Amino acid sequence: MKTLLLSAVPLLGGFSLQAAIQSKTIEYKQGDTTLEGVLVWDDAVKGPRPGVLIVHQWLGLTGYEKYRAEMLAKLGYVAFCADIYGKGVHPADTTEAGTLATKYKTDRTLLRARVNAGLEELKKSELADKSRIAAIGYCFGGTTVIELARSGADIKGVVSFHGGLDSPTPADGKNIKCKVLALAGGDDPFQKAEDLTAFESEMREAKVDWQIVFYGGAVHSFTQPDPGFSNPGAKYNERADKRSWADMKQFFGEIF
Amino acid sequence: MKTLLLSAVPLLGGFSLQAAIQSKTIEYKQGDTTLEGVLVWDDAVKGPRPGVLIVHQWLGLTGYEKYRAEMLAKLGYVAFCADIYGKGVHPADTTEAGTLATKYKTDRTLLRARVNAGLEELKKSELADKSRIAAIGYCFGGTTVIELARSGADIKGVVSFHGGLDSPTPADGKNIKCKVLALAGGDDPFQKAEDLTAFESEMREAKVDWQIVFYGGAVHSFTQPDPGFSNPGAKYNERADKRSWADMKQFFGEIF
Repeated sequence: MKTLLLSAVPLLGGFSLQAAIQSKTIEYKQGDTTLEGVLVWDDAVKGPRPGVLIVHQWLGLTGYEKYRAEMLAKLGYVAFCADIYGKGVHPADTTEAGTLATKYKTDRTLLRARVNAGLEELKKSELADKSRIAAIGYCFGGTTVIELARSGADIKGVVSFHGGLDSPTPADGKNIKCKVLALAGGDDPFQKAEDLTAFESEMREAKVDWQIVFYGGAVHSFTQPDPGFSNPGAKYNERADKRSWADMKQFFGEIF
Repeated sequence: MKTLLLSAVPLLGGFSLQAAIQSKTIEYKQGDTTLEGVLVWDDAVKGPRPGVLIVHQWLGLTGYEKYRAEMLAKLGYVAFCADIYGKGVHPADTTEAGTLATKYKTDRTLLRARVNAGLEELKKSELADKSRIAAIGYCFGGTTVIELARSGADIKGVVSFHGGLDSPTPADGKNIKCKVLALAGGDDPFQKAEDLTAFESEMREAKVDWQIVFYGGAVHSFTQPDPGFSNPGAKYNERADKRSWADMKQFFGEIF
């Protein structure tokens, strides 16, 4: 019945009621550095809605983050794909990606400044309900959103997909004001046992509201059909991808 | 509108359309031992529906399992509260409960026989769709449902709520045909690190479809408002209770 009505609309009014996902490239600054992110939303949704910051993996901002942003827009959120590396900085290969990711992972002050600049940009959008903001990130971005939480960001929650959970300053766990959900491959060889233990201790001692889910059979990069390099320890896993997305949605249902 | 129609029904037909949760105590056998379980369902649901076996904690079958069975019946499932200890066996205190739980935990052959007897009883019910059966359990019952999986039971999945995950025969992981979801307190002092590691290895080596969720801030017995003993390591946690129930429902949505 619904299908019939919708298909009849063009005959009646000459326009479609089909929702349209919109996107806009946005230049913004952190200090003297120019960054370039992408805002994505569904223009069928009216008024301010929960906002989700998306932080990219080690290859920088790619079509992958925009694809996730579209999925979030279809759920009714406004998503902003943040840029950590800077406008025009796109590692040519995994060697360059590794160098860049290491640069930010070893300078958490800079990493926090960059991700917070993205958060501020999302909050500036009139589409975003500033009181309902979360951040998600993949691999390097998963580490980054937890670092965003450690910076004391005033948001509702962060979700790390196969992100490194280590911290050079575990005492900063006490700054965390939001809920933390870490989604991890049960067989991820890049996730060190001592980092997991340290992360749990950090969360516990700071009395953070934290959760970790381990997906059996999943290794690193389990949400990424093309992780950008060939390694048996980093591989797409459809089952874990779907489950982790469902777990994220459930978490959003709780915090928003 | 719906409320108006429903409240008008008694005037029209002299009966209520209100759904009613029904329960029936059932005696059954394992070997020469008489067991006594409880079947719970919603009589507003017609025809065979997914069935959920519920296995009790160390205190034996109590009102707690029936309460969970009613929650499941309201979701449209038929639930059977299994009895592991035997008809009329109700430990008077935690000392007796500990003795009984240890008896079955150290005789996994008997434990498997007892829980499989319950499963057969659930499958006998015409209310249950035999192709869509799962089992859930609390503490001792959490251990038991994983043991049910290790026995090679032909069911869709098992969910352990704060259950011990250790196995005296880890090679039996290879018998597991169903999906396994373990829901654990992130701060449960009764969950030994070496048992967790061994469980993960068992699942991994047997290529089981497994997941573990850790709820930060939750200790043992986090789903039980009255765990039956006073210990800071075993305490109700409303947040983890609600989240674990939601995680179970999501898992059921996937397997049924």
